Amino acid sequence: MKDNVLNLTVVLADGTIIKTKRRPRKSSAGYNLTGMFIGSEGTLGIVTEITLKLQVIPQETSVAVVTFPTIRDAASAASRVIKAGVPIGAMEIMDEVQMSVVNKSKSTKKVWREVPTMFFKFSGTKSGVRENIDLVKKLSKQCKSIDFEFTADPEEQKKLWSARKESLWSMLSLRKGDEEVWSTDVAVPVSRLADIIEVSKREMDELGLFASVLGHVGDGNFHEAIMMVDRALEMEGTCTGEHGIGLGKKKSLVKELGLDTIGVMQKVKLALDPNWLMNPGKVFDHPAETNPKGT
Amino acid sequence: MKDNVLNLTVVLADGTIIKTKRRPRKSSAGYNLTGMFIGSEGTLGIVTEITLKLQVIPQETSVAVVTFPTIRDAASAASRVIKAGVPIGAMEIMDEVQMSVVNKSKSTKKVWREVPTMFFKFSGTKSGVRENIDLVKKLSKQCKSIDFEFTADPEEQKKLWSARKESLWSMLSLRKGDEEVWSTDVAVPVSRLADIIEVSKREMDELGLFASVLGHVGDGNFHEAIMMVDRALEMEGTCTGEHGIGLGKKKSLVKELGLDTIGVMQKVKLALDPNWLMNPGKVFDHPAETNPKGT
Repeated sequence: MKDNVLNLTVVLADGTIIKTKRRPRKSSAGYNLTGMFIGSEGTLGIVTEITLKLQVIPQETSVAVVTFPTIRDAASAASRVIKAGVPIGAMEIMDEVQMSVVNKSKSTKKVWREVPTMFFKFSGTKSGVRENIDLVKKLSKQCKSIDFEFTADPEEQKKLWSARKESLWSMLSLRKGDEEVWSTDVAVPVSRLADIIEVSKREMDELGLFASVLGHVGDGNFHEAIMMVDRALEMEGTCTGEHGIGLGKKKSLVKELGLDTIGVMQKVKLALDPNWLMNPGKVFDHPAETNPKGT
Repeated sequence: MKDNVLNLTVVLADGTIIKTKRRPRKSSAGYNLTGMFIGSEGTLGIVTEITLKLQVIPQETSVAVVTFPTIRDAASAASRVIKAGVPIGAMEIMDEVQMSVVNKSKSTKKVWREVPTMFFKFSGTKSGVRENIDLVKKLSKQCKSIDFEFTADPEEQKKLWSARKESLWSMLSLRKGDEEVWSTDVAVPVSRLADIIEVSKREMDELGLFASVLGHVGDGNFHEAIMMVDRALEMEGTCTGEHGIGLGKKKSLVKELGLDTIGVMQKVKLALDPNWLMNPGKVFDHPAETNPKGT
């Protein structure tokens, strides 16, 4: 998303209204304030206007669903697709637990194989899409893929994508009583994706937790039903690929970036919001609380 | 370039060394410090290490050179190519003056038609490249293109690209005595590209200046031999698409963004560099100098 934002209008803590940038696609005019406010979770100011880039509607779109014997095979296929530079609109991984949850919840019109499954979206020209599908099929085969289904028909695309779309709701619909679902959001370098999924699945099993894996693997980002932050950090990853820090991951952010880097963020916030008014307590604490000596 | 930077190691004014982010492609971990330091022209700290994304080497590359009767036709073709969403590695425009400069300097092995000319780079799979070339050819034709030359042969690609590569040097080689070449760097929304090129060429002629146009038109960014900042700003553009502010464009930055937005940049710099030690005097002045009342 952030790459599609051209500029922002922001109301600052002292009431000043600024526009971060004008409207050209490329600019080197001063500090990148647009990037600074995006993802600051309301702690630097309140965004009241956003200018977005327009995107061209592709000539052709297509969805493919590919099944694999193990989650490692599926993650390896994802890694190969990325390394081959195949242009992909979306690439998502779901493990056998998540697929069975979708079946149990009866939230889609299709009955799914309960095995690790990858979902791909393609877009572009007719022959470009066709060529990329063939390439992904070949690379999947090299990783022992079982089935390879694809379609360019709009209704069939919806049906094939439905397991991905309904995954969260199907998980929530299976809760009993006051059971809670915890969703995580770590990201690691793409080369470590298979490792972290395998390790975290094993640890979940050992803890006796019911856990499923769902990942936006094109970015090395995946969600799982419990905190896997330490594993991700060991692999040079991040505690949050897209959901942000909020209250829940403040300690993880310290672990990930260290107090010096967070010190720079605190200084930036203090410069723009000296009275710590904007969404206080989120992302990181006031320096006086982080470091009682106040250095 | 900025989109290919994963993280930075930065030495701050007080000697602290920070790493802006870890290594995953996607992260929402706190403020985007990477984006804040990129393009800050050394005023926030000294970058000592950069982690870059790796890119896949494309299966096929190709270069096309297309001539047009007028600069407006060429710019319209550029605009159509962008609006059609054709994936392009590079798209450059040179006017008839720039083409004749290249011929006069004898810096390339080819003799060029002295008319407005577009240069395209394509990359991808064999059939994808072929398809995109056909599409650009069709769109160029709709804008009255004269010639359309293209090649996938590596040596021939160099030859076709040579006019673009040698354009600055050929301009410099034609100076007499102490004549100066001024290069500009504005960018406007892509929809206004034809307008600004046409207007600024006319104004150059009226001023009796020898001026040529060269543009990275995929971004709406073009260079010309004298300041065209006011025209670009009228069209919601920027005074600098890629070269930055430095000393020369400080006044233009004020015109472009206004004192409130620059005030935020000053506060950020003061927070990290209270003694104004890092590359002082560049991009913007100390608040005490910008606004003698010091508010």
